[in-house]
Amino acid sequence: MTTQAIPREPQQDRSRATRQRLLEAAIDCLASVGWTGTTVAVVAERAGVSRGAAQHHFRTREELVTAAVEYGSDIRVDQMRERLYVLADERPATLEVLTLLGELYTSPLFRAALQLWVAASSDDQLRAQVVPMEARFGREAHRLTVEALGADESVPGVRETIQATLDLVRGLGLADLLTDDSARRDRLLRQWALTLDSALGRTP
Amino acid sequence: MTTQAIPREPQQDRSRATRQRLLEAAIDCLASVGWTGTTVAVVAERAGVSRGAAQHHFRTREELVTAAVEYGSDIRVDQMRERLYVLADERPATLEVLTLLGELYTSPLFRAALQLWVAASSDDQLRAQVVPMEARFGREAHRLTVEALGADESVPGVRETIQATLDLVRGLGLADLLTDDSARRDRLLRQWALTLDSALGRTP
Repeated sequence: MTTQAIPREPQQDRSRATRQRLLEAAIDCLASVGWTGTTVAVVAERAGVSRGAAQHHFRTREELVTAAVEYGSDIRVDQMRERLYVLADERPATLEVLTLLGELYTSPLFRAALQLWVAASSDDQLRAQVVPMEARFGREAHRLTVEALGADESVPGVRETIQATLDLVRGLGLADLLTDDSARRDRLLRQWALTLDSALGRTP
Repeated sequence: MTTQAIPREPQQDRSRATRQRLLEAAIDCLASVGWTGTTVAVVAERAGVSRGAAQHHFRTREELVTAAVEYGSDIRVDQMRERLYVLADERPATLEVLTLLGELYTSPLFRAALQLWVAASSDDQLRAQVVPMEARFGREAHRLTVEALGADESVPGVRETIQATLDLVRGLGLADLLTDDSARRDRLLRQWALTLDSALGRTP
């Protein structure tokens, strides 16, 4: 072993960049035109990548979409973690945490993920890939929410209340699918913050 | 005008029965094979109706599916109303109401509606039909929940808490899409009943 730097491999970098462009274009495409309109060819064109290069990375729509939603989920969890760490000095207000969650579940990524879930609900092979991915994302979102709220899950009922909060924001994501639900969502989350403070014994 | 009975019109009855069979088959079909697999031809076959007769009632998939979800929503609201009226003698426990809502949002109808919402999210024409229908269903579900819980919406925050309850069960419906979530849902709703009793000042 030497300390000499390993020469960069431009081709590998290019390949990684191409893959990432395809994943990002796939999320945009799913969120805007839906599952039926999201094919490898359409995504390749949107990403400015040749169809051949795209198919080198992803042979099927299912492969591309699953990879895209996983990539996007990782990014959203990282963003959530970062933003919560910024708030960590001053203990974040419950409403700040809820607002972050509300954003997470109304983003283009949520819309893209929703397309994937719905497609997977009638496709066993796709479902087998999506279920463990969603379980992992769900655990991460739960853990981050517990940390952000400083909730003590050893207290009976706290775990279920945190879960209910995540199911609520998931429902809010669905409510935002066809119309802009942001004004109602803001009122609802302000009230939810009070309910949560009382249920968790948190001082507002 | 006479008091003589108007003769029944068997052809009209048959037509109505055919329409109803198509609507019910469309809900089953959407819930099991999804939007892409739900065509007028497939639904006609499932309903045991000729393709010509089916197309006499519904020219396009969009027409059929929208009518089916509307029909199913009306039936579910009626069922919910009936079941709540049965409970009305003894004031229903909060958990009973939540369990009813949980069933409503994990039924084949919810799955069918979800397929329609997701399709409408990238189809402006379909969206224009679905949005007022969903608004009407949402108002009905809200009104029934308020009645069932005997909630007083003139108290600040109560309206938002009822809305949150409905968004929560909608999120629970989504969580049940790919895996059987019933055990977690039961625990969560038991805890939510306690939170709701406290938030609404309801004695359990």
